[in-house]
Amino acid sequence: MKDNKNITSRDVDFAKWYNDIIREADLIDYSSVKGSMIIRPYGYAIWESMVNVLDKKFKETGHVNVQMPMFIPESLLNVEKSHVEGFAPEVAWVTHGGDNKLDERMCVRPTSEVLFCDHYKKIIKSYRDLPLLYNQWCTIVRWEKETRPFLRSREILWQEGHTMHATELEAREETLRMFKIYENFQKNYLAIPVIVGKKSEKEKFAGAEETYTIEAMMYNGVALQNGTSHYFGQKFTKAFDIKFLNKENKWEYPYQTSWGVSTRMIGGLIMVHSDDYGLVLPPNIAPIKVSIVPIKNTEEVLDAIKYFEMNLKEQDITFVTDMSDKSPGFKFAESEVKGYPIRLEIGPRDLFNNQVTLVRRDTREKIILEKSDTINKIKELLIEIQHNLYNKALERRNSMLYNNVKTYEELKDIAKNKPGFALINWCGSTECEDKIKNELGLKSRCMPEELTDTDGNCIVCGKEAVTKIYFGKQY
Amino acid sequence: MKDNKNITSRDVDFAKWYNDIIREADLIDYSSVKGSMIIRPYGYAIWESMVNVLDKKFKETGHVNVQMPMFIPESLLNVEKSHVEGFAPEVAWVTHGGDNKLDERMCVRPTSEVLFCDHYKKIIKSYRDLPLLYNQWCTIVRWEKETRPFLRSREILWQEGHTMHATELEAREETLRMFKIYENFQKNYLAIPVIVGKKSEKEKFAGAEETYTIEAMMYNGVALQNGTSHYFGQKFTKAFDIKFLNKENKWEYPYQTSWGVSTRMIGGLIMVHSDDYGLVLPPNIAPIKVSIVPIKNTEEVLDAIKYFEMNLKEQDITFVTDMSDKSPGFKFAESEVKGYPIRLEIGPRDLFNNQVTLVRRDTREKIILEKSDTINKIKELLIEIQHNLYNKALERRNSMLYNNVKTYEELKDIAKNKPGFALINWCGSTECEDKIKNELGLKSRCMPEELTDTDGNCIVCGKEAVTKIYFGKQY
Repeated sequence: MKDNKNITSRDVDFAKWYNDIIREADLIDYSSVKGSMIIRPYGYAIWESMVNVLDKKFKETGHVNVQMPMFIPESLLNVEKSHVEGFAPEVAWVTHGGDNKLDERMCVRPTSEVLFCDHYKKIIKSYRDLPLLYNQWCTIVRWEKETRPFLRSREILWQEGHTMHATELEAREETLRMFKIYENFQKNYLAIPVIVGKKSEKEKFAGAEETYTIEAMMYNGVALQNGTSHYFGQKFTKAFDIKFLNKENKWEYPYQTSWGVSTRMIGGLIMVHSDDYGLVLPPNIAPIKVSIVPIKNTEEVLDAIKYFEMNLKEQDITFVTDMSDKSPGFKFAESEVKGYPIRLEIGPRDLFNNQVTLVRRDTREKIILEKSDTINKIKELLIEIQHNLYNKALERRNSMLYNNVKTYEELKDIAKNKPGFALINWCGSTECEDKIKNELGLKSRCMPEELTDTDGNCIVCGKEAVTKIYFGKQY
Repeated sequence: MKDNKNITSRDVDFAKWYNDIIREADLIDYSSVKGSMIIRPYGYAIWESMVNVLDKKFKETGHVNVQMPMFIPESLLNVEKSHVEGFAPEVAWVTHGGDNKLDERMCVRPTSEVLFCDHYKKIIKSYRDLPLLYNQWCTIVRWEKETRPFLRSREILWQEGHTMHATELEAREETLRMFKIYENFQKNYLAIPVIVGKKSEKEKFAGAEETYTIEAMMYNGVALQNGTSHYFGQKFTKAFDIKFLNKENKWEYPYQTSWGVSTRMIGGLIMVHSDDYGLVLPPNIAPIKVSIVPIKNTEEVLDAIKYFEMNLKEQDITFVTDMSDKSPGFKFAESEVKGYPIRLEIGPRDLFNNQVTLVRRDTREKIILEKSDTINKIKELLIEIQHNLYNKALERRNSMLYNNVKTYEELKDIAKNKPGFALINWCGSTECEDKIKNELGLKSRCMPEELTDTDGNCIVCGKEAVTKIYFGKQY
């Protein structure tokens, strides 16, 4: 089979390829609302699949869901200074209710730290009330000028965890615990290898003391920040005057965290695994694992379909059967474009020999096998495909990591000729960070804990380096 | 045990009782955002429980979830005239993005018919694309002047189904099918008996041809519209010029429905079942079915708790164990206020006799039984409590139905002295409907299909009646 004619090759025009995949797989539609997208059923099913896994993991670790208002009065947004400076330029303002001008305008939440603090102030009284481990699934709005489906949108579906703790240690542990949950989710479900570490001062979340990030590398070597976890210390609790009586009966400010992932992860999924035939979804996150395609609608084929549908249902393996009047070739292409991990082709000739055909989406390999072996083989393959996708992504990612960059010239060469992430010795100054950004178009990614020991001076200014840090192009 | 001191008696001050229940059971908190509420973990868990059941039922009937933008440009809202007239007075307007004034202001969706139509116009081409059975879980905004937790709020969590069909028959069937799902959900999960039927012209949804409603009666005889299903015919599809090629290869406008329920149902749950001791939740919707309360923390008691926790988990029966240092009396009251259907009290004296105590939340009856019988008895009781709550609600509701009202004087007497719903002969005119509303404070509820045969003239104007219809006070 040839490449899908409706999809530009990803090696020819990656941006166009990305849009083609999204359109052909029916993930989104553009809307009359500038900068907002419509998430279509198949795109939303992928999000639901992510939500189900994460929500379960959050609850297993003691978190509970709540729902805050979607509006923030301007005065409330203004309470924490560094926070409002980061967000005010990109919020949507509600100024009228019906025909009446509001006394105070309100923005649609770009994130909900201040709303949670406003509530926490009322319900936190004693150490007995802590920790508070809250999470919220909702939509946020950021008034982006340029938008891209899933990657940068004015409206974003996400979750935001907001927690309060009696001690710094506990809050720091929470920041890292949730961060670890994200990392494992991306590895084990999305099959995306990630580089994790602390953000620079410049790149951290507005108002946070520390931001930990999950950095994924796309097929083209460009970075996607695919989740963050923030440690706030007592910054907001002091600004909001939230206090609790500790065990020593003294008033103290609690310690705070927040953490979030969004539909952006769907963009990451696409740009890590998909190919010129369409979407490729790792089995552990694919809403539909198997597509069944009859080659011809004979009685034997229809009986076999019923048999497989029953068996797949029994094993809790999701499937679709394409009974449309399209040709088998069309159905194969459709199944590939949608990224169903396994295609089960059932034809009269195969059946005559008591056989069927399985096709792996990841390798496009055909496997002809005994009908009775099929379900077991499918179960095996789902695991194998998941591993294969991760390993392929890991190998490619590693081939684009430059961990031994010693001079600014080398970094320049990478920025120009070699897509990927470069690890450099850095003095920690925003000046050097800005220079790299302005001259080379690379932004700092993160300082991965196990790789931060320096082995030379800052490659920009030549002063003493305090850490190593990754730089790369970003979405 | 005496009534909960923090809760006003519902027979003394129903409105205050309602607010007390909501506060004492930790369902919501008020926020700095006027008219919006914070749904706290326990309140949100009840909503999640509703969402899980309904989402499954929607999917079983072929519906898929999508996500539309939350904003509606003013010109898009204006496309269907009767719709915009109904909603424009109560929308929140976004006029600025960051520092920039928008070219066209946008409202936050009060409902999403026009957004769905805008999308449908692009994706509907042929009869092969129909039906489209979409649903969306989201937040909507209506700028209410007076708000009440769960009943009337500026922000509402809800689901809105929006479907398109090739034939009128199919769309009408869908309207009734979803309506039936709501009715069964309220009966079988919320244990709320409902009166179902068509709304009057005046009370139907802005833009709909027909609105079917689920009317529940609260403890105080006041009505709560607890879900609606609308048939639009081709009204919007003509306004939006949405056309498809039918099987005869001719262009035709499809037929449309929409249907929704919201967090308002939580308000209904409270006002139907709860009492002066706190919340009462039907087991089929309660997020937590059993509360375990140790009377004393002896080794035997702790062992027994472990034993019951293990067994409840095995049976998939949700529970909480109160290990706080409060007194048993406090814990009992807390368990009642939260409305956990069954309380399992474990004390050393009972255990010595190999016994434990169960307390039903609905009747507050104590049952002392053998430890080994407990899990089976809990399973039995959960079913029994569910039935009992429904039957109690049904009996009370029926005692406040006046199905034999023959004169305006009788209706006046009911409006003044008898809470509940009155069924009257009606000529169908909005004038008579308005007269009842303005003079007696009753609004039309619905025309229940099996009760619409008239047996007299309109009790207001004396002209020929075309139907019977319920009237009642409403939230």
